Amino acid sequence: MKLGKTLVSVLMIGVVCSTAEVQSQYQGLSPVPFTDVRIEDEFWAPKLETVREKTLPHNLEFCERTGRLSNFAKAAGLMEGEFRGIYFNDSDVYKVLEGAAYLLASHPDKELDKQVDEIIAWIAAAQQDDGYLNSYYTLVEPDKKWTNLKDKHELYCAGHLFEAAVAHYRATGKRTLLDVACKFADHIDSTFGPDKRHGVPGHEEIELALVKLWRVTGEERYLKLAQFFLDERGRERGRRLYGDYCQDHKPIEEQSEICGHAVRAMYLYSGVADIAAITGDKGYIDAMERIWRDVVFRKMYITGGIGPSASNEGFTVAYDLPNDSAYAETCASIGMVLWNHRLNLLHADARFADVVERVLYNGLLSGLSLDGERFFYVNPLASQGKHHRKPWYNCACCPTNVVRFMPTVGGYVYARSEDGIYVNLYVAGQSTVQLNDTSVKLTQQTRYPWDGNVKIIVEPKVPATFEICLRIPAWCENARLKLNGNAVHKLETVKGYVRINRKWKDGDIIELELPMPIERIEAHPNVKGNVGRVALQRGPIVYCLEAVDNGGSVRQLVVTRDAKLTAEHRPELLGGVTVIKGNAVPASSEDWEGKLYRKVSKCRPIEFVAVPYYAWDNREPGEMAVWVPENSGTSIPETQ
Amino acid sequence: MKLGKTLVSVLMIGVVCSTAEVQSQYQGLSPVPFTDVRIEDEFWAPKLETVREKTLPHNLEFCERTGRLSNFAKAAGLMEGEFRGIYFNDSDVYKVLEGAAYLLASHPDKELDKQVDEIIAWIAAAQQDDGYLNSYYTLVEPDKKWTNLKDKHELYCAGHLFEAAVAHYRATGKRTLLDVACKFADHIDSTFGPDKRHGVPGHEEIELALVKLWRVTGEERYLKLAQFFLDERGRERGRRLYGDYCQDHKPIEEQSEICGHAVRAMYLYSGVADIAAITGDKGYIDAMERIWRDVVFRKMYITGGIGPSASNEGFTVAYDLPNDSAYAETCASIGMVLWNHRLNLLHADARFADVVERVLYNGLLSGLSLDGERFFYVNPLASQGKHHRKPWYNCACCPTNVVRFMPTVGGYVYARSEDGIYVNLYVAGQSTVQLNDTSVKLTQQTRYPWDGNVKIIVEPKVPATFEICLRIPAWCENARLKLNGNAVHKLETVKGYVRINRKWKDGDIIELELPMPIERIEAHPNVKGNVGRVALQRGPIVYCLEAVDNGGSVRQLVVTRDAKLTAEHRPELLGGVTVIKGNAVPASSEDWEGKLYRKVSKCRPIEFVAVPYYAWDNREPGEMAVWVPENSGTSIPETQ
Repeated sequence: MKLGKTLVSVLMIGVVCSTAEVQSQYQGLSPVPFTDVRIEDEFWAPKLETVREKTLPHNLEFCERTGRLSNFAKAAGLMEGEFRGIYFNDSDVYKVLEGAAYLLASHPDKELDKQVDEIIAWIAAAQQDDGYLNSYYTLVEPDKKWTNLKDKHELYCAGHLFEAAVAHYRATGKRTLLDVACKFADHIDSTFGPDKRHGVPGHEEIELALVKLWRVTGEERYLKLAQFFLDERGRERGRRLYGDYCQDHKPIEEQSEICGHAVRAMYLYSGVADIAAITGDKGYIDAMERIWRDVVFRKMYITGGIGPSASNEGFTVAYDLPNDSAYAETCASIGMVLWNHRLNLLHADARFADVVERVLYNGLLSGLSLDGERFFYVNPLASQGKHHRKPWYNCACCPTNVVRFMPTVGGYVYARSEDGIYVNLYVAGQSTVQLNDTSVKLTQQTRYPWDGNVKIIVEPKVPATFEICLRIPAWCENARLKLNGNAVHKLETVKGYVRINRKWKDGDIIELELPMPIERIEAHPNVKGNVGRVALQRGPIVYCLEAVDNGGSVRQLVVTRDAKLTAEHRPELLGGVTVIKGNAVPASSEDWEGKLYRKVSKCRPIEFVAVPYYAWDNREPGEMAVWVPENSGTSIPETQ
Repeated sequence: MKLGKTLVSVLMIGVVCSTAEVQSQYQGLSPVPFTDVRIEDEFWAPKLETVREKTLPHNLEFCERTGRLSNFAKAAGLMEGEFRGIYFNDSDVYKVLEGAAYLLASHPDKELDKQVDEIIAWIAAAQQDDGYLNSYYTLVEPDKKWTNLKDKHELYCAGHLFEAAVAHYRATGKRTLLDVACKFADHIDSTFGPDKRHGVPGHEEIELALVKLWRVTGEERYLKLAQFFLDERGRERGRRLYGDYCQDHKPIEEQSEICGHAVRAMYLYSGVADIAAITGDKGYIDAMERIWRDVVFRKMYITGGIGPSASNEGFTVAYDLPNDSAYAETCASIGMVLWNHRLNLLHADARFADVVERVLYNGLLSGLSLDGERFFYVNPLASQGKHHRKPWYNCACCPTNVVRFMPTVGGYVYARSEDGIYVNLYVAGQSTVQLNDTSVKLTQQTRYPWDGNVKIIVEPKVPATFEICLRIPAWCENARLKLNGNAVHKLETVKGYVRINRKWKDGDIIELELPMPIERIEAHPNVKGNVGRVALQRGPIVYCLEAVDNGGSVRQLVVTRDAKLTAEHRPELLGGVTVIKGNAVPASSEDWEGKLYRKVSKCRPIEFVAVPYYAWDNREPGEMAVWVPENSGTSIPETQ
């Protein structure tokens, strides 16, 4: 794949070293960065506050305590001692720095800024003269640099450095880390390339990171290098293919099924989507569509979690979605959001934002405890009561991924085209979106995700004609819309959006009503473990039953057919959640003594309480289940 | 445990070397041997015919073809060559001989008789001068005899020799094999004992076999030796305990939970029940009760299969009864019948006969194909379509166990006390039961298990007062009874039997009506895989859904709540079976394209057909399921 004509014209813009970015030219959407979105709601705002006050300091402390920070000082010769930990631990520091930078961007904090500068100083000092930077190799195997691209994650760590550097530069305007990143990128670029050394990272990440570095620096070589790494993948050019665990079994444009390590796949395809948006490469775009269908129609948990298997931290076969043993790594959920966000921008199609929402509110958010200091690595959909979040992991990818992801949530709310604003998520707050002709202030008022009523106040700087596209979530039926108090009849969606094209003036009001009945969801019958079971969903929130709310045991409950389900908001519970209540049959009733089998009998239903899945395991430990058997629970008159 | 007073008085009878047996004195029941029961029904009679015409010759042929027979000739020096196969292959030959003897007992057959004599001649020739007999040790490790009681099954093989010898002697009156058995038993008795060598078999079997040998010979040493082996079990006397895999973790009278290898457990406890019936040993009797409750209330499949785990061919923890991976070895089912039959005799309690019936008609009978020449080793309760009976196994315990068990089915129909006849199974045919005062001819007329109407014609040789006890199956509600045409009101059962004590005269007629509605059965909620599922049962027959009857797929079917289930007899199907038909929702309906999850929706029910579990895998291969999800399958109106 060569750089297309379109790209060349983009690159003509030349090196841009301000926050103004090089723009993609493929006719997709542009993001509205989280820095332009102020979240002021009951749901996300307190969580983001927790991330800032708890999760970031917690991560910094653990990076310190576990030697992750001092590895750089040691590599720089500023400190005595051996490398500590796993060979890719540098990446954790970069991810925490990235998170810190995002938080600095929205909340200036002198002390944090200073702390970040100190860490950056160590990192910079650890960089070798030729630009190489990896504390493990410098300290442990200085002669083995670039000898094991498949397993040793040097390029992966470099990618996270680049992301951190871009974030830090954007947040602070300081080039300290960006210069380090560029110097390392230059070193990598001088080492790898079509006419240099061939090779690809075993763990993808650098591809999307190089695109970011290109966007902020305008340095064409970085974009070409990203393309090179993608183009090499699955091609046996002077090296042995890594196989499908690393998505390196065939060229990307020939791939059709998701396979291998889930996080790697998501990072890779995020990079592919980035490049596809820039070049319009049809091979890449078609491959993404095939793979997306494979994931979303066959290999995704209802929580949006992906990668069912612990053995490869990744994918198996279609419909293999066991509940108890679901791996569904938190990092993979984050990757799923990164990828689907890019696909949404690429295609301006709400089905990708539907996935973003599903993951975000369920299988991603579950990764973080309400107190902000414990993390799930693995996100099962059922538990016997022994699965709990931990403060840290030896392989700390998930805690550090959470801290860099969460501050960016606002970046998923809107997207824009030249003359259109896309509303992808409903989150109360204020935002300013730049269009070609004007800038538009948007104020969302809503109690989403607990309530589907959304009021959007539109305030263009000057009255202007543009399109506002409102995503109608796939879970929603019978959405209703009012414009300045007048009902809009016959809502039509195009690619999942209701599009309102008009001349907008200051104070125009959109009122969107997204009814949120409680839904019983069934899974595709090929998902064997879910046959005869239902999951409860309300709006975007997937629910689960926890032992603590249900008399100590939930795995023996059967939801009765005639159960009336009701929603009740409990502000005091789990940071404020809407619970679902209904009747279930305690399959474990009194008269099982001395019986292993019996004729189905009438049982007195008991009330159960379901809580949002993301919030489970924040109270007394106990059983949990998302998919609950559903049956009548009453006796059936039989004929012979 | 010492021989109790009761036993001593029994043994005072002295050596009895005719078919008249030494009787137990513990106040239990005595068996009515299958030789006194002529089966003339549509269900068992054709199967027994198949066993005689197909299964026995098939087993003999495979014993021949696999070197099992010639191992004896080689050990005897009558043939050149090395030992072939597994070290316990002798036991297969003994089991086939046992089966052949049972068939000779009811169907004299000169050719078979001659063939059996020839095999016995080889076996006798292989016996060493001191009585030792084991072709593996003689040929392979002649210096290692009795060095590995735990693993090498010498005592196990000896036990099967004894059972075969007793059967052959009873069937033919010939002492050829019995003499071999006694000589070997004498050798073992001279080797092991309280004041000789301590030790127990790793695989139990010899205990119950020694009791049989004692019954037919009256030789007290054999009974004492059986008791010795039981008494040693779980006691560390000059040897290391084998652990719970071999039920050798604690003394039998201290055991409370079933554990380890299922077949071993069943053979052991059958021997224990035998001894308990003779001695009245309370420690043994109480242990059997505790263990029985553990098995039947916590660890038994609805088919009567036991031992869920392949890893130990045995038991795990309570309620661990997975369907797809159910091991439920055919031999273990046979063992379950042997044990429960003995407990029924011991306690005159129908709950044990209930288990016999459950196992017999389901998880045991499934072991044999309808054509009589293929066998399940493993009897799962669900299949993806790849589990099939095979003509033989390298470890051939199951095929050879089937051929020795099936001819004895008639022996489970009746039992007797001094002045009472117990009807445990309902099988059309004729029988003569000896009571103290008279002999009674009983003629059962019934289409059981397809129909619960049973007519029993009672013909005592002379009018006499005795009790006829009719088992009311645990599955049956609202049984009705007529005596000489007059309804008996208020049927009362004692220990599961309706007891009719009167002066019986020639031609008295009992009419028993056991209604057989189709029942939906649910499992104890702790059986995780069955939550929300039901099994269908009608009379004693457990049903399953096979792909061949249901459009190629059954694992996606959900039985609807309002499904009317009907029974229909199909004489042409599977040797004549009653099928169950009803409505199920094809969870796999048309509109799943592009969906992995959806709101539960209205589905058009389709008719399903269920067939008896025992008869599955006799047609086109395909999926099978016993436990079927049950739910409404219709949409649920929700409120918020």
